[in-house]
Amino acid sequence: MGIHAYFRSLDVLDRIIRCPGKFKFEEHSVAAHSWKVVQYAKTFADIEEQQGAVIDWKKLYRITSSHDYGEIFIGDIKTPVKHSSMQLRTLLQRVEEGMIHNFIEEHIPREFKAIFQEQLREGKDQSTEGLILEAADKLDQVYEAFSELQRGNTEKEFVSMYRHALLKIRSIPLKCVDYFFDSILPDLVSEESMSPVDIRKITEEALASAPLPSPSRPHTA
Amino acid sequence: MGIHAYFRSLDVLDRIIRCPGKFKFEEHSVAAHSWKVVQYAKTFADIEEQQGAVIDWKKLYRITSSHDYGEIFIGDIKTPVKHSSMQLRTLLQRVEEGMIHNFIEEHIPREFKAIFQEQLREGKDQSTEGLILEAADKLDQVYEAFSELQRGNTEKEFVSMYRHALLKIRSIPLKCVDYFFDSILPDLVSEESMSPVDIRKITEEALASAPLPSPSRPHTA
Amino acid sequence: MGIHAYFRSLDVLDRIIRCPGKFKFEEHSVAAHSWKVVQYAKTFADIEEQQGAVIDWKKLYRITSSHDYGEIFIGDIKTPVKHSSMQLRTLLQRVEEGMIHNFIEEHIPREFKAIFQEQLREGKDQSTEGLILEAADKLDQVYEAFSELQRGNTEKEFVSMYRHALLKIRSIPLKCVDYFFDSILPDLVSEESMSPVDIRKITEEALASAPLPSPSRPHTA
Amino acid sequence: MGIHAYFRSLDVLDRIIRCPGKFKFEEHSVAAHSWKVVQYAKTFADIEEQQGAVIDWKKLYRITSSHDYGEIFIGDIKTPVKHSSMQLRTLLQRVEEGMIHNFIEEHIPREFKAIFQEQLREGKDQSTEGLILEAADKLDQVYEAFSELQRGNTEKEFVSMYRHALLKIRSIPLKCVDYFFDSILPDLVSEESMSPVDIRKITEEALASAPLPSPSRPHTA
Amino acid sequence: MGIHAYFRSLDVLDRIIRCPGKFKFEEHSVAAHSWKVVQYAKTFADIEEQQGAVIDWKKLYRITSSHDYGEIFIGDIKTPVKHSSMQLRTLLQRVEEGMIHNFIEEHIPREFKAIFQEQLREGKDQSTEGLILEAADKLDQVYEAFSELQRGNTEKEFVSMYRHALLKIRSIPLKCVDYFFDSILPDLVSEESMSPVDIRKITEEALASAPLPSPSRPHTA
Amino acid sequence: MGIHAYFRSLDVLDRIIRCPGKFKFEEHSVAAHSWKVVQYAKTFADIEEQQGAVIDWKKLYRITSSHDYGEIFIGDIKTPVKHSSMQLRTLLQRVEEGMIHNFIEEHIPREFKAIFQEQLREGKDQSTEGLILEAADKLDQVYEAFSELQRGNTEKEFVSMYRHALLKIRSIPLKCVDYFFDSILPDLVSEESMSPVDIRKITEEALASAPLPSPSRPHTA
Repeated sequence: MGIHAYFRSLDVLDRIIRCPGKFKFEEHSVAAHSWKVVQYAKTFADIEEQQGAVIDWKKLYRITSSHDYGEIFIGDIKTPVKHSSMQLRTLLQRVEEGMIHNFIEEHIPREFKAIFQEQLREGKDQSTEGLILEAADKLDQVYEAFSELQRGNTEKEFVSMYRHALLKIRSIPLKCVDYFFDSILPDLVSEESMSPVDIRKITEEALASAPLPSPSRPHTA
Repeated sequence: MGIHAYFRSLDVLDRIIRCPGKFKFEEHSVAAHSWKVVQYAKTFADIEEQQGAVIDWKKLYRITSSHDYGEIFIGDIKTPVKHSSMQLRTLLQRVEEGMIHNFIEEHIPREFKAIFQEQLREGKDQSTEGLILEAADKLDQVYEAFSELQRGNTEKEFVSMYRHALLKIRSIPLKCVDYFFDSILPDLVSEESMSPVDIRKITEEALASAPLPSPSRPHTA
Repeated sequence: MGIHAYFRSLDVLDRIIRCPGKFKFEEHSVAAHSWKVVQYAKTFADIEEQQGAVIDWKKLYRITSSHDYGEIFIGDIKTPVKHSSMQLRTLLQRVEEGMIHNFIEEHIPREFKAIFQEQLREGKDQSTEGLILEAADKLDQVYEAFSELQRGNTEKEFVSMYRHALLKIRSIPLKCVDYFFDSILPDLVSEESMSPVDIRKITEEALASAPLPSPSRPHTA
Repeated sequence: MGIHAYFRSLDVLDRIIRCPGKFKFEEHSVAAHSWKVVQYAKTFADIEEQQGAVIDWKKLYRITSSHDYGEIFIGDIKTPVKHSSMQLRTLLQRVEEGMIHNFIEEHIPREFKAIFQEQLREGKDQSTEGLILEAADKLDQVYEAFSELQRGNTEKEFVSMYRHALLKIRSIPLKCVDYFFDSILPDLVSEESMSPVDIRKITEEALASAPLPSPSRPHTA
Repeated sequence: MGIHAYFRSLDVLDRIIRCPGKFKFEEHSVAAHSWKVVQYAKTFADIEEQQGAVIDWKKLYRITSSHDYGEIFIGDIKTPVKHSSMQLRTLLQRVEEGMIHNFIEEHIPREFKAIFQEQLREGKDQSTEGLILEAADKLDQVYEAFSELQRGNTEKEFVSMYRHALLKIRSIPLKCVDYFFDSILPDLVSEESMSPVDIRKITEEALASAPLPSPSRPHTA
Repeated sequence: MGIHAYFRSLDVLDRIIRCPGKFKFEEHSVAAHSWKVVQYAKTFADIEEQQGAVIDWKKLYRITSSHDYGEIFIGDIKTPVKHSSMQLRTLLQRVEEGMIHNFIEEHIPREFKAIFQEQLREGKDQSTEGLILEAADKLDQVYEAFSELQRGNTEKEFVSMYRHALLKIRSIPLKCVDYFFDSILPDLVSEESMSPVDIRKITEEALASAPLPSPSRPHTA
């Protein structure tokens, strides 16, 4: 086989539904999630660039486009499981990497092996691009949870997902994250909602639980 | 909380779809699969009993009814991952057991803790009841794969699932397994099929690949 | 044919959706419902046994596992129709029994005919096992209706289904039913709900409409 | 209440799926089926009119538009059940009529009661309009079964449904039925099909099993 | 080909979902919508006739049954696009008419061409029947939007759709429209709702925004 | 509002299903399609770069990530309609551009207006990046149609879509297109297929109908 095997495998991620087992009003596939992450990252990078950062667009394209590809091999393992022990997490990551390695060995032609190795490995490093990917990935959790809460979904996990994703984003030292908290989140919270869930209060409580460290945050730009 | 937490959690298994990521004409939830396993096991135990075995019906009820409950905590991990390393498998099983333990500690009243510990642990031991559960669980893979092949599903994984499940069943030393190969499988294979897949041939090849060890198989009865 | 015909038919109940025609946020198949009933009955029997009753586990397994199998032949007839005239109800039941009889005659091998006749007939008699099945079956209506109300479903039929199922359960003379009203229902009602429907009030009204006859209830244990 | 109750109830038929329990590649609601019947009947009546018949269009509109409304009350009872005994069939029809009667009594304003009584009763009488409705209703079964067979559905019930519907149509003494067999069915059968099912053969066998009585059929025109 | 091509094409409208892109709790196909319009129009015509109007039932049947058939060719173009420029609207309508013309030329036998030309052209003219179709078509928007609002859908477009459809209906000079506002809408508004959306207020605001012109409205009867 | 309005709108494309009205075994949203196009384009650009071309990765990221965003405003207009007249096509494009312009004016903050204007306009120009986008977009049609044909979908439109997309790709003067025809398409065609449709023959006929102009094709590298 060859690159066809890679192209053909993409549909698998259009069949894996995020948050399996939870009741939700609207389902999202990993493929659709991935596309939204590509979009958020694009805009975050534009903001970062406008604030003076230098963006490696080729790298950003590479790491955002394939960031959840490993789920093809591993499947959807519940978050509490992944985090239940450091040893398990390391082991799972090693298995995933091994499977990606085998896939590349078996299917990808010699002249593209290096490219796919770069493309399919974990992209969330401490570079500006890696941090943007992390922020964009978490932002989609914010939006997914927000939509469910707004429609009256009473599963506590969505409150929890919303909180944790917000706090994770706030810990990322990027200018676009400042922009997000200053100019995007207020619009999100004030979106006219007829939900029985008080999203403003949840947001304020989440952010109050860990005071904003913004003055002391070092920026990459 | 209390037993309500357990009853309430059952719906989670009605939302987890088996074989995520694979194209299939018909989806099955873990809840519906579990019910079919209860049914197959019932009939397998009736056959075994008729052949002289003594069935512990309380035990059989207990282990078949909850046999996939652990998926509520672990989620759906792909088979190749589970089998990729002995160490990972052991670790995953330990995490699942730990989570079930915590669930019982947190939710189940003291007077029922022992019952739930029995009920929610892995039931596939070497007892007649444990072997019947194993056979019944694999039989549902046979039927799931058969239905997809019969409708023309061309994903190779269903051929593979059908083969492996058949071979696994054949390795189980039970009279009801003999009955299955003598009297149930032939009906299944000869079911008038308009499928482009030659199920008879796949069946014969699967069974030929590992010659029937029946003479030397010890029986429990 | 033979037992294959029975095994093969089980998928039919995974395709029949309960409460057809009603708007619902979440659909449940008869197969998934059946599995939940198996679970509730298991726990109810454990409670009953702990209180001193003797449980025939083989019988309980038999009657709970197949309790809605007849719907394969009859389909889903609306409750008001079934109850509209005693004559119709009797006639429908006779047709269902006739079809089950024919199915067994045609498909089940001679040596298993007696077993399937036991297994596929109505199990809700006045024995402890029959009463447990009745309680477990109604409990799933309680949970199904509760979930819809909690998510804001405004169809009156779910209020009505919730009420009637609760009252029916309360009329069953079992210790596990006492346990349910003392220790499970309060957890259910107090589950943090953001629903616009006041489930506590509906519960209290339902139970007030027919005062608890508990002191005078004879128990089987 | 009033006519609002009637209008509001129509969505129920958009939630009831035809042929429950059977595997099918494509599902059809009773509402969508009803609309297709309205269309077929329109064209059948045009053909009949062109051949000299006098059509009462108001009557045709009335009986075709609501022809399956009774399923709101009765639900989906399987065909073999309905036909299992004459007594049951009569009883079920009486229950349906009673429920329609009660609905009209309770909800429809006095000045429209007579209109709704006409509209909601069984329209398949021996008038030209009643026969057209019968032919149109069966034609939708032909198309539903044909689509499933063409896509490779191997459930025997669709072969059976296709046969019986064709034979029922052929027994109806209308010019538009002649037109259907002369000019519509041949197009249907010769539609380029890649199905593993030989639809032409099924059609020819069905029609051969009961020789065409066309010369002796009396026509209404 | 022939009329088979027309009959066969009807399923396309059972696969096109109304309001694509909007979140909704319940989806409706164009086929199911069409059937509900047939029903509303039937009752509106009955009311109109009772008030002294003369209804051409053949025409009403013809124009209501096929009123959205053109969507087979054009697909679902968003309302704001359709209304964005007079020129575009005219052009789109011309394209639709051209495609219907071509379909009839290619598929419909000579002797039925005139009938299908009548049937498939836009029926919403200023005749009583055309006005009834317009009112019935808008009424389904009222019901679709009402159902979503009642279940707590917070998308503003459904408030907007509800308003505009109500106002459009009110502008139609028919007695059945008066009946609708006097006797049907009040039932709809007072339907016991647990929705967080205040439908009564939305209704009153919508109707207040353009005072009722009823005294001066000319009636056709 | 601000950028939140843009982020929030992305879910619309996860609710719009491609090829509405056609029967298909598997549905794909515009969001999932968009992600696959991002992936194909990434690999095509890698190939092109390896052959010596200079890729503007920022531009490629920008134009591929948002390439179907306009469908949010326009909805899904059927291909034959779009192509039915040059005048209509121009008008529709102008309306889409106007709506995107208005969206940017209304929602996007001043400092990002220029970026969004670049991002949301049609990216398929004659630059290497524009041509790669065109090839990647058509490649997803090849894969979508191939999957349906392979599963036995007998709708002619998928044969037609497969043909046209292949021919369109072949007309694009890029080295990665040569690579696709030399090294990817053969794998696709030889994928073990149990489909009743002869995909190899369809591919050969499609390519034979317009002989390969490869010698005379100018390349951008």
